Amino acid sequence: MPEPLDVDFAVVGAGLAGLTTARAILEAGRSVAVLEARDRVGGRVLSQPIGDGQVVEMGGQWVGPTQDRMYALSQELGIKTFSTHDDGDELALIGGKRYRYHGQMPRMNPLVLADFIQLVMRLERLVKQIPVDRPWDAPRAREWDAQTFDTWLRRTAKTAKARSMLGFYMSGIMATECANFSLLHALFYVRSATDFQTMASIGGGAQQDRFVGGSQLVATALAERLGDAVKLEAPVHRVIQRNGYVLVESATLTVRAERVVIALPPTLAGRITYDPPLPSHRDQLMQRLPQGTVTKVNVVYDVPFWRDQGLKGFCWSPRLPVGAIMDNSPPDGSPGVLVGFLIGNHARSLAREEPAARQKVVLDCLTEYLGSRASAPHAYHELDWSAERWTRGCFGAHFPPGVWTQYGPSLREPVGRLHWAGTETSSIWNGYMEGAVRSGERAAKEVLLVTS
Amino acid sequence: MPEPLDVDFAVVGAGLAGLTTARAILEAGRSVAVLEARDRVGGRVLSQPIGDGQVVEMGGQWVGPTQDRMYALSQELGIKTFSTHDDGDELALIGGKRYRYHGQMPRMNPLVLADFIQLVMRLERLVKQIPVDRPWDAPRAREWDAQTFDTWLRRTAKTAKARSMLGFYMSGIMATECANFSLLHALFYVRSATDFQTMASIGGGAQQDRFVGGSQLVATALAERLGDAVKLEAPVHRVIQRNGYVLVESATLTVRAERVVIALPPTLAGRITYDPPLPSHRDQLMQRLPQGTVTKVNVVYDVPFWRDQGLKGFCWSPRLPVGAIMDNSPPDGSPGVLVGFLIGNHARSLAREEPAARQKVVLDCLTEYLGSRASAPHAYHELDWSAERWTRGCFGAHFPPGVWTQYGPSLREPVGRLHWAGTETSSIWNGYMEGAVRSGERAAKEVLLVTS
Repeated sequence: MPEPLDVDFAVVGAGLAGLTTARAILEAGRSVAVLEARDRVGGRVLSQPIGDGQVVEMGGQWVGPTQDRMYALSQELGIKTFSTHDDGDELALIGGKRYRYHGQMPRMNPLVLADFIQLVMRLERLVKQIPVDRPWDAPRAREWDAQTFDTWLRRTAKTAKARSMLGFYMSGIMATECANFSLLHALFYVRSATDFQTMASIGGGAQQDRFVGGSQLVATALAERLGDAVKLEAPVHRVIQRNGYVLVESATLTVRAERVVIALPPTLAGRITYDPPLPSHRDQLMQRLPQGTVTKVNVVYDVPFWRDQGLKGFCWSPRLPVGAIMDNSPPDGSPGVLVGFLIGNHARSLAREEPAARQKVVLDCLTEYLGSRASAPHAYHELDWSAERWTRGCFGAHFPPGVWTQYGPSLREPVGRLHWAGTETSSIWNGYMEGAVRSGERAAKEVLLVTS
Repeated sequence: MPEPLDVDFAVVGAGLAGLTTARAILEAGRSVAVLEARDRVGGRVLSQPIGDGQVVEMGGQWVGPTQDRMYALSQELGIKTFSTHDDGDELALIGGKRYRYHGQMPRMNPLVLADFIQLVMRLERLVKQIPVDRPWDAPRAREWDAQTFDTWLRRTAKTAKARSMLGFYMSGIMATECANFSLLHALFYVRSATDFQTMASIGGGAQQDRFVGGSQLVATALAERLGDAVKLEAPVHRVIQRNGYVLVESATLTVRAERVVIALPPTLAGRITYDPPLPSHRDQLMQRLPQGTVTKVNVVYDVPFWRDQGLKGFCWSPRLPVGAIMDNSPPDGSPGVLVGFLIGNHARSLAREEPAARQKVVLDCLTEYLGSRASAPHAYHELDWSAERWTRGCFGAHFPPGVWTQYGPSLREPVGRLHWAGTETSSIWNGYMEGAVRSGERAAKEVLLVTS
């Protein structure tokens, strides 16, 4: 082994969290090394070239109001945003019916609509009671954490359709079934994203804007500024804490630093060997935060043909494997791109099929939404994030019942010289790119403060 | 690196599961190497010497009716069993009251008793519907898996006391709060242990018998027979599958084999690096199976003084940090030993205290149960299994809501040349020593069959 590289601080993971941690450290005049397992930066933010200098985004991609740090950061880096295509009618396939609508909701049975609205209002009422930095301190935290979101839905909805619609929505947001996370986690997650409306909307909400050239540009531009502080193909397998310093060992280099920020999904942070071993509360926390289950597809057409039919390209259905699609074309609409999501059981069962069979299922869904032109794309791109060795599931981690109230305080608590970043540690926009950036800035403050 | 050691099969982990796997392989005339991280065998079965050739058991220790493989195995190895001390009165501290009783239950308010009995009967009625090899195929599996056991308890119990009693019991069995596991998992777990009565009882149940000289003797006697097939201090960090063979890499040696059996708790199996990486369904399963949370204490006195007072030593209380204690003395009752359990939140919060403060809390509990003589023990032994690097939680793993129905079929499914053992993979007596032994025998059959 060569001599360790000496820096003030080490960062594990060159996703948005790790990169923003490193940037804040450099700006404070201290030295840093970022160790990244992959041969690229960006983590869950990834561009896939589709020719002619265009890309489609296989990971996180949208930004919206109150995601202030992402807007500021991208502006500073000279990356432009543009509005997500938001013109035309929405389409919903619910039960055997096809709803073409414009505005908030399809014109369904008024009883179902009223029920859906009361469900969301009840949810919002509980959401407002969550202290976003300490969900475990909510007035009825234990009660809310002892039940699944599915249980709450069943108890609160008056109609099966309204229940299925909100369940479908929250499951899509969390990339796992409503059985798998607690009511408290659902409330925290919505609170973290401001409110239900902000989380769910295109215009005025979390899907409002996109990045010209693809969201990964934010990561690559950050990495460029960091220069050779970023060490690619350096998967960290061991972190050793000693009196006065920490050693971060990877396959390709070892870094010695005052402190280290682990900017990984919790389940991957749990796979590193720590010497001395972590205290039980931290280890058991990481055992309890699984990543969601989603395969993202981008399907490329010559033109966004749905726009000619007056359709927005945003279509959804609780009964189809591709539960939702959106127009994901570049700013000039050339080529036409549809993005779609396989969530939870759909992703799991299709992961076991041959690629051609899976592609057929996806294209059949798109055809059911948008007609036969959808069946003959130009190109087809898919990514099963659960199969990605250095991610193991998207969008983020979810908290199963009991975990927030039992382990919540361990989420950001440093362990000696180890600090924790990553969107899962963020109070604001947890699970989003914005959360990643905020977590990195928070972790950088921690290590700078303690050593200044 | 020296040349790899060539054997027919490799086994990772020398707990009861790994050791019985290896034994069955040797008996079939094939060669085997067992790689164990610790400097001892036994895993979650561990003896602590207390002088005069006596030991106390810090891990799994009891056996009972229908645990046929453990009885047969120990007999074959020449290890004797004796009856758990079961004479005298039980003691329960519930609310502000002290119940001294003999038989099944304290003489409480008849309404509470009737409610408790109806609760257990309802539970048993559901338990009978579980196909123990495929809980995900139970008639209402999805419904049962979408709710926590806590939710079911709240909906089904008519009195707060009966609910708290059954909740306390199931939480103790699972070593985690009733919020953390699904109703389906609770039903599976009881079914796996035959029925509630068998699981809960001393005489006629899972706590009926003990091993003379301590349960770890079963592991050490097995290891003796295996001779130098057992490699201690060989923590496995990588498993490489290639065409026709598998390489198992540890800090001290590498083994080349036809197939490998991973006999670890799922969460530790998930920390090994697999090359090629595991398919998403297997990786995500291991993200979702956390270990329970328990600190076990053994407190040693000159004599089992409680016996003179006509007490059995079995005392329990839903309101005390040490929720249950039992007489854990050697066969001749000399010295007197009490075993106690800190479960879930009690273990977590006390793990953050100084050892002396924690010991005081424990002894105060014992004193509240048995009077002032309990406050002055001879010796005090404790083990926080969550802090054990090579276990990370006991008694076993639990299934949070959604996991059985979404990932159940992956639990025992081989991945190429990788096979899975460990008590968590057992249909019968899952979580117990018996389950570990059965899982090892099943895994051995798998690898022998496929290569014969």
